[in-house]
Amino acid sequence: MSGKVGNQTIAITRKVIIRNRACIVSKKEKAGPLGEFFDQVEDEKFEEETWEKAESKFMKSTYSKLVTSCNITDQDVDCILSGDLLNQCMATGFALKHTGRPIIGLYGACSTMAESTAIGALLVDGGGFNNVVCMTSSHYCSAEKQFRGPLELGTQRAPTSQWTVTGSGGIILSSEGDGPVITNVTLGKILDFNIADSNNMGAAMAPSAASTIITHLKDTGRVPDYYDLIVTGDLGIYGRQLCEKIMQEEGVHFTQNRYKDCGELIFDPLVQDTHAGGSGCGCSAVVLTGYLLDMMQKKQINRLLFVATGALMSPTSVKQGVPILGVAHAIAIENV
Amino acid sequence: MSGKVGNQTIAITRKVIIRNRACIVSKKEKAGPLGEFFDQVEDEKFEEETWEKAESKFMKSTYSKLVTSCNITDQDVDCILSGDLLNQCMATGFALKHTGRPIIGLYGACSTMAESTAIGALLVDGGGFNNVVCMTSSHYCSAEKQFRGPLELGTQRAPTSQWTVTGSGGIILSSEGDGPVITNVTLGKILDFNIADSNNMGAAMAPSAASTIITHLKDTGRVPDYYDLIVTGDLGIYGRQLCEKIMQEEGVHFTQNRYKDCGELIFDPLVQDTHAGGSGCGCSAVVLTGYLLDMMQKKQINRLLFVATGALMSPTSVKQGVPILGVAHAIAIENV
Repeated sequence: MSGKVGNQTIAITRKVIIRNRACIVSKKEKAGPLGEFFDQVEDEKFEEETWEKAESKFMKSTYSKLVTSCNITDQDVDCILSGDLLNQCMATGFALKHTGRPIIGLYGACSTMAESTAIGALLVDGGGFNNVVCMTSSHYCSAEKQFRGPLELGTQRAPTSQWTVTGSGGIILSSEGDGPVITNVTLGKILDFNIADSNNMGAAMAPSAASTIITHLKDTGRVPDYYDLIVTGDLGIYGRQLCEKIMQEEGVHFTQNRYKDCGELIFDPLVQDTHAGGSGCGCSAVVLTGYLLDMMQKKQINRLLFVATGALMSPTSVKQGVPILGVAHAIAIENV
Repeated sequence: MSGKVGNQTIAITRKVIIRNRACIVSKKEKAGPLGEFFDQVEDEKFEEETWEKAESKFMKSTYSKLVTSCNITDQDVDCILSGDLLNQCMATGFALKHTGRPIIGLYGACSTMAESTAIGALLVDGGGFNNVVCMTSSHYCSAEKQFRGPLELGTQRAPTSQWTVTGSGGIILSSEGDGPVITNVTLGKILDFNIADSNNMGAAMAPSAASTIITHLKDTGRVPDYYDLIVTGDLGIYGRQLCEKIMQEEGVHFTQNRYKDCGELIFDPLVQDTHAGGSGCGCSAVVLTGYLLDMMQKKQINRLLFVATGALMSPTSVKQGVPILGVAHAIAIENV
């Protein structure tokens, strides 16, 4: 039974274990600095006719990998929590319709991996659910087409623009099994700092990331160095600098290298021409499930604060010139 | 602490009370058969420049009404669960950014009122949350523009087409206060019956509604007449007939007038030219919060199964000719 701590944080009191993890990426992600941590790589079309169907297949295959490598069946899955960037979350719908299991659709833009994990942890903690799958996906081509313009135009990219990750990542939360546990979740509020440039999403999300981290530390009474690593995603190079600046102004300081960002980690901007870094729901999802949870498994880190960030905007809202809103949810993951 | 019952149902074991309810509709809804139950009516532009901003204002005003008429403040709200039909759920983002409270964005198409209520009930039952707001909205003009075509074209409507409700409805779930309680939730799976006609959403959703109701009855061991009323939403006239037919074929029979549909209840098709009936997330939300919960308050009914249904489709998926997927979640609400 969970308990509220402070203003936005819930302490998870049952043992909620990350029982399994899986991710599948495309070639550009595999060629990046974290390439060795992703165990399956597929062409961006993944043998499908459209990018949208390909994105669904990334998610569908990740779900299958999650379930089969854990030696459970669909029937053992009590609920699937998932969302994506496509209008009306269509990647999720087509990826998971074959499962025959209860599905809760989420929308939190690029914060979805933390959002699904937060709700999943609360459901398992509540006692009515055992195996809960939390997952998300994104796809460079379907996202560019939907949010910016036809790829065929070859439009020049702004220095602050980010590169949507093609891939899907997911975890199974359970009260059984082995793995790190989720100890706290801090649910984020929506902030509006009047940023309307869809090529500068890092600036729209940075205040939300800073707000959620500061609130989490205040709510739990922890100092920043309680965590071996605090990771935001996906602010990118400039968003991460902005987030760090806001936190410093609020008196929150980190020991060097204890604060990183998924968008910065996944690509090498000089070699891969990715400008400010990676983005998309898939970015923080594959960095968490491929890289960060691997570090936890090897005990290279034992306490992780995972803070996925979302830029809330739509093709329509961008054309209407209204601001991009930011949101961020934080998950404390610990080896116990 | 909640407990799993059967395949897709969770029994809520703490007292999770519907502490307050509110809804705001536009003129067409006010002019319909349930008009007297909606306590605020606004012009479809609601003094805003765009239909999207108007939709947000319907939701923002409904949230304010919910909180103030309950004599609580934003700070007493532990979490807001909300989603809508606009691409990337932008109505929710702009409606709730001023609250400063944790927000979980959902996407379940027109099933959102049941989806948000299900998750809200599970969170309150889990012990970490007290006042949880569950809400949604839709808007005829923003939905037609996004999913079908410019209103200015005056395109002829198909006989099976439905009319998106303009309005917003919401409830506050709490472990305190007076009101009916939520006793069970049945989370739905995604079904694909290969319906690709976006003017016949009722056919795409009917099998999901039937599946969720049948599963709910099987999981809980209840007979259909346990409920004074089972209400689906928003299948419309033809979808409701189809749902009833599927259930009859599966051996589930109702006493006359114990099964109704929100899409059929909200408009008078002969007078209001609404063809198959109402639709949109707002449809089941305002019928629940305006009409059905009023009947419960007056003890005209004491056991209600509320089954909101969603047609999962996007402007892109419709153009690509892929099927419309269906989903339905059920909430058992009882006067105890």
